[in-house]
Amino acid sequence: MQKSLEIYNETNRKLKALAYCGFLSGWDINTEMPPKANHEAELSALSEMSYTLQTSDEYSAAVDDLYAHRDELSDVLKHEIEAAVLSKQKLKKVPMDEYVEYGALLNRFYNVYVEAKNKSDFALALPYYEKVVEFKRKYVLWQQTDELSGYDVLLDEFEKGTSRKQYDEFFALLKEKLVPLIKKINGKKLPFDDSFNKKYYSEEGQKRFQEYLRGVVGFTPDHTVVKESEHPFTSGYGKTDVRITNHFYADNFLSSVYSAIHEMGHGMYEMQVSDEVDKTMSGGGASMAMHESQSRFLENIIGRSKSFWETHFEKLKEIFPENLDGVTANDLYLLSNRAECSLVRTEADELTYSLHIMVRYEIEKWLLNGQIEAKDIPSEWNRLYKEYLGIDVPSDKEGCLQDVHWACGDFGYFPTYALGSAYASQIYHAMQKDLDVAAEIRTGSFSGIEKWLAEKIHRFGASKDPKDILFYATGEEFNPNYYIDYLVGKYSKLYGLDA
Amino acid sequence: MQKSLEIYNETNRKLKALAYCGFLSGWDINTEMPPKANHEAELSALSEMSYTLQTSDEYSAAVDDLYAHRDELSDVLKHEIEAAVLSKQKLKKVPMDEYVEYGALLNRFYNVYVEAKNKSDFALALPYYEKVVEFKRKYVLWQQTDELSGYDVLLDEFEKGTSRKQYDEFFALLKEKLVPLIKKINGKKLPFDDSFNKKYYSEEGQKRFQEYLRGVVGFTPDHTVVKESEHPFTSGYGKTDVRITNHFYADNFLSSVYSAIHEMGHGMYEMQVSDEVDKTMSGGGASMAMHESQSRFLENIIGRSKSFWETHFEKLKEIFPENLDGVTANDLYLLSNRAECSLVRTEADELTYSLHIMVRYEIEKWLLNGQIEAKDIPSEWNRLYKEYLGIDVPSDKEGCLQDVHWACGDFGYFPTYALGSAYASQIYHAMQKDLDVAAEIRTGSFSGIEKWLAEKIHRFGASKDPKDILFYATGEEFNPNYYIDYLVGKYSKLYGLDA
Repeated sequence: MQKSLEIYNETNRKLKALAYCGFLSGWDINTEMPPKANHEAELSALSEMSYTLQTSDEYSAAVDDLYAHRDELSDVLKHEIEAAVLSKQKLKKVPMDEYVEYGALLNRFYNVYVEAKNKSDFALALPYYEKVVEFKRKYVLWQQTDELSGYDVLLDEFEKGTSRKQYDEFFALLKEKLVPLIKKINGKKLPFDDSFNKKYYSEEGQKRFQEYLRGVVGFTPDHTVVKESEHPFTSGYGKTDVRITNHFYADNFLSSVYSAIHEMGHGMYEMQVSDEVDKTMSGGGASMAMHESQSRFLENIIGRSKSFWETHFEKLKEIFPENLDGVTANDLYLLSNRAECSLVRTEADELTYSLHIMVRYEIEKWLLNGQIEAKDIPSEWNRLYKEYLGIDVPSDKEGCLQDVHWACGDFGYFPTYALGSAYASQIYHAMQKDLDVAAEIRTGSFSGIEKWLAEKIHRFGASKDPKDILFYATGEEFNPNYYIDYLVGKYSKLYGLDA
Repeated sequence: MQKSLEIYNETNRKLKALAYCGFLSGWDINTEMPPKANHEAELSALSEMSYTLQTSDEYSAAVDDLYAHRDELSDVLKHEIEAAVLSKQKLKKVPMDEYVEYGALLNRFYNVYVEAKNKSDFALALPYYEKVVEFKRKYVLWQQTDELSGYDVLLDEFEKGTSRKQYDEFFALLKEKLVPLIKKINGKKLPFDDSFNKKYYSEEGQKRFQEYLRGVVGFTPDHTVVKESEHPFTSGYGKTDVRITNHFYADNFLSSVYSAIHEMGHGMYEMQVSDEVDKTMSGGGASMAMHESQSRFLENIIGRSKSFWETHFEKLKEIFPENLDGVTANDLYLLSNRAECSLVRTEADELTYSLHIMVRYEIEKWLLNGQIEAKDIPSEWNRLYKEYLGIDVPSDKEGCLQDVHWACGDFGYFPTYALGSAYASQIYHAMQKDLDVAAEIRTGSFSGIEKWLAEKIHRFGASKDPKDILFYATGEEFNPNYYIDYLVGKYSKLYGLDA
């Protein structure tokens, strides 16, 4: 077993180095690289090297040997070996040439997607979407087991243990409970004068407020980088190199505020992984939904709370004194929680957000089971936006081309956003038993809250399954009712309805 | 041979991917990475992977087979194979653990060097300098041949065919011809009112002029990136991804102008490599001296010419109208050519520049032959600055810690700067036979000059030895007298001396 452990560690050292290259090139492509530079050949070679290492006979035998002795290993290593067995078995089912060609296809697709979106021209991107869907359908056939088939293969990869059945039930419940609430609210106005929101907020001022928020969240320049990109995202490599991006709109200053808090939620998770786990293959977050639970917890539950604005409004007013003359903290609270069916997911309010996810979930499901084809995406998108959100989609740019995920081949990713939001409410409920959360927010720092999250969730990194972390943090299994209760309670109160 | 060619290409595809990672991490570390992030483990693993590929039996046999059949290959490939044989033979003489440990040492050294420089504390960096010198001494013993010993091993690696003997003669000639001229000039003032140089030049304005110069040089944003860093440098990967950095001093606005032109000279070389060569292992410049010849040609011979300021002064005046009120193009010409013995190499004028190089050359030579030790660097540095340039060095920050090269293990690099400057004059002499260079400059674009350089030098990339390229471009072997004639002619005229 000692020899196997050496081979395992040695291979992972190389795999981690290749993952570092992957992180660097991804960060570079999204923030820095000249637009017409092209490193596809190098990226393909790197992906091939990674494939070869993970599927080599030597590594495979070492992992199998460690798996046979898994009960003699530490908990962290045992969990890693279980994941490694699964991962190399799955990878071996994908022929290397298809694996590499698919990676190259995604690299080419990225630029085409950006162009298609800018021109609002779905037809430009269609041949690529078709190829990605074709690959994904083949992929699920390769990976199918007695337990998992079709789209479930992808759902389980993004969030272990999830399936169409579970998501169908989850979304049905959301639909049942939230749609009536949204209908009641529809057309109602929150009682405040929102004219201050139509004023000009300089990018420089927005950046100053973002910088202030970095201090609140505890982002130090020692271990973090902040940049701009078209779509805000979080990247990084290990807990000491965490990078977030943002964008700034003169006509929507709250967008950059909440993008910043959201991405810092992801970053905070990465930074609080324990040192012991950070250096292993289990560094980083436990799953997409768990990651999203952290960003949406910080963005929505903390950042859109009344206490948040009561504590931080003065700083915003200091930066924009003329715009905010006569405006109150409560006005900001109301503005940041206004619910309205709208076109763009990333700008959606907390209440209607999951309807956006449901549209994407249905389309993914149908694409994977062959019920629709890539060419049907725009019409299905527009039909579902009308059905779920009651709105007409004027263009593909604001419609089915708004998100990059499918162009990155990420089918099965979207539903984790809704699940993560639900995790966040369950976590919030548990946190309140230990902490006076509103009082913590009023200290002006998130540190008490972050300490709780570190102890209950962050420190484990990916060394446990998300469901086990959720159970550890909250004392119970996933329960979507916390999400519904939170939203119904908050929005009924906001809009003066009977809860 | 077909099989060997396949193995050769396949290995190089991976080596190029690893080189791309090396470029990305270098760029990231110098411009972007959070200061306390640390990716040493990943960088070591990558360097090990590169070592393993280059020293594998399979690759080695393939290269030897291709070498045996080299006369059947294209000129580009033949040159590559000759270089590959030499390179893998040399690498095999370095034990892998020492190779990797040395790379890790350099990674650690970088941050220590920055701290030592900022604190002007040589003692902080000394243990690292000692280890680097120790490795370099071992390295030259490993690589010694009948033809090459000691420091010559390193000189030959930086510029094929150069040796102590050649450099000693070259520097002796420079000393003989330039030092008397410098003495004559010493204390003389150029006839212009330089008070405009003491005014405040905003960073924003300096950036605008740099942007304007990018247009003059033909840098398009499609394939280039421009950033800031403590020391300006050029980086990139292939002709379609060229990156330069700059710094801005409010009290020395010409510094950023000439740093920009210098780095764009490097970048222009990279961008003009032929498509055919760019994709091979012979992409990039032919050698350090040839690269430096291009940057110094553009910076000094073109950028510090009278025609340059006659053509571009108006733009500078448009950006800084108040500072330059009453100032003429000729004033800028004089300011940018003022000769003065000074402390810092990168800010040195064209005439005294090579004296700075000579100091470094002597110290390197003595370190490698054991005449002095790392601890003697500051005292020898200060002694030689007094002897060659007649000035006292007030601190190590402005003295022996001013350059990062030795902290990067680059012994043998500095002399190529002087050689490159001399190449530039020889190239200029040849160019003037084909082109009216002053008239070209006055077109407002460097494109005619760049076209000549592309045809004579750039397109070959590293597919020929530098001496062959110099011969092709100028019709003769290296002749340092062009450099001396150029400097003596220009400075005698400037300072009103008899040439």
